[in-house]
Amino acid sequence: MPKVRIMGLDPGLHRMGWGVIDCEGTRLSHVAHGVIITHASEGMGIRLMKLHEEVARIIAGLNPGAIAVEQAFVFKDPLAALKLGHARAVAILAAAQAGLEIAEYAPNHIKKSVVGVGHAGKEQVQAMVKRLLPACGVEQADAADALAAAIAHASLAGTRAKILAALS
Amino acid sequence: MPKVRIMGLDPGLHRMGWGVIDCEGTRLSHVAHGVIITHASEGMGIRLMKLHEEVARIIAGLNPGAIAVEQAFVFKDPLAALKLGHARAVAILAAAQAGLEIAEYAPNHIKKSVVGVGHAGKEQVQAMVKRLLPACGVEQADAADALAAAIAHASLAGTRAKILAALS
Repeated sequence: MPKVRIMGLDPGLHRMGWGVIDCEGTRLSHVAHGVIITHASEGMGIRLMKLHEEVARIIAGLNPGAIAVEQAFVFKDPLAALKLGHARAVAILAAAQAGLEIAEYAPNHIKKSVVGVGHAGKEQVQAMVKRLLPACGVEQADAADALAAAIAHASLAGTRAKILAALS
Repeated sequence: MPKVRIMGLDPGLHRMGWGVIDCEGTRLSHVAHGVIITHASEGMGIRLMKLHEEVARIIAGLNPGAIAVEQAFVFKDPLAALKLGHARAVAILAAAQAGLEIAEYAPNHIKKSVVGVGHAGKEQVQAMVKRLLPACGVEQADAADALAAAIAHASLAGTRAKILAALS
């Protein structure tokens, strides 16, 4: 079974969570995770440049083959949606510039992949991420959500591999 | 009076209007304008890469000192705000990477600068852009709006220069 390296992202302008895992069949292993932080006082141009540079640096350093990003859910607050759009865009841009496969998953799909139910709470997702990746020791919620997005993609990649194997 | 070159932007994921003007005191002159078009079928990564590349290419070719972007107004539709956020972000990123001054103006401020009243209609703004920049021959609404943003910035730059001259 070929090893696939996946980067998950939980985008945000103030805090952008990221996590990288390896997936070999159904076996998952933790590679790295973290949170990129920017501040409103830096101005939009600098914040976007920092997020873009950091995501590009992580991709260049860890060389994932795909990136999994949580789809933006429906907001009540359009200003929050606008800000999230800024953060997502520069991360997706860095992934596209590196030639990565870009996958977007609905929050409920990620929860279902990780916990088994689509309406799981944030704490349940984080506890399951720690159980699936015992070595990760993740404490930041943003990074745990990013790892959850990567796990959801890995689960899909595993299903795809099984279907291909059954067909061959 | 030093000449200032200003790039105006009317961001959008499907159509991104741009326009570049020169400003020497109160004298404005048209340099270039256009619209960058992307399609939903291309996928988000490719669209953002195309917008970022084109804005960076225009900046490198025409060498403006500042970029003026219309502030996003309050939307009823958060999905539209999210999409606009994506388009704005990669354009602002390209400007920040080129070291440009980035100015954001409220739509009413732009209308007031160009037409004289904050609640002017789109056609009034476009007619006034053509009157202020007779050589521009702009027909696309997106490019006219981008030129209007640049004119608003020029007007502010002119005011700043007058204040500095009065103080010196």
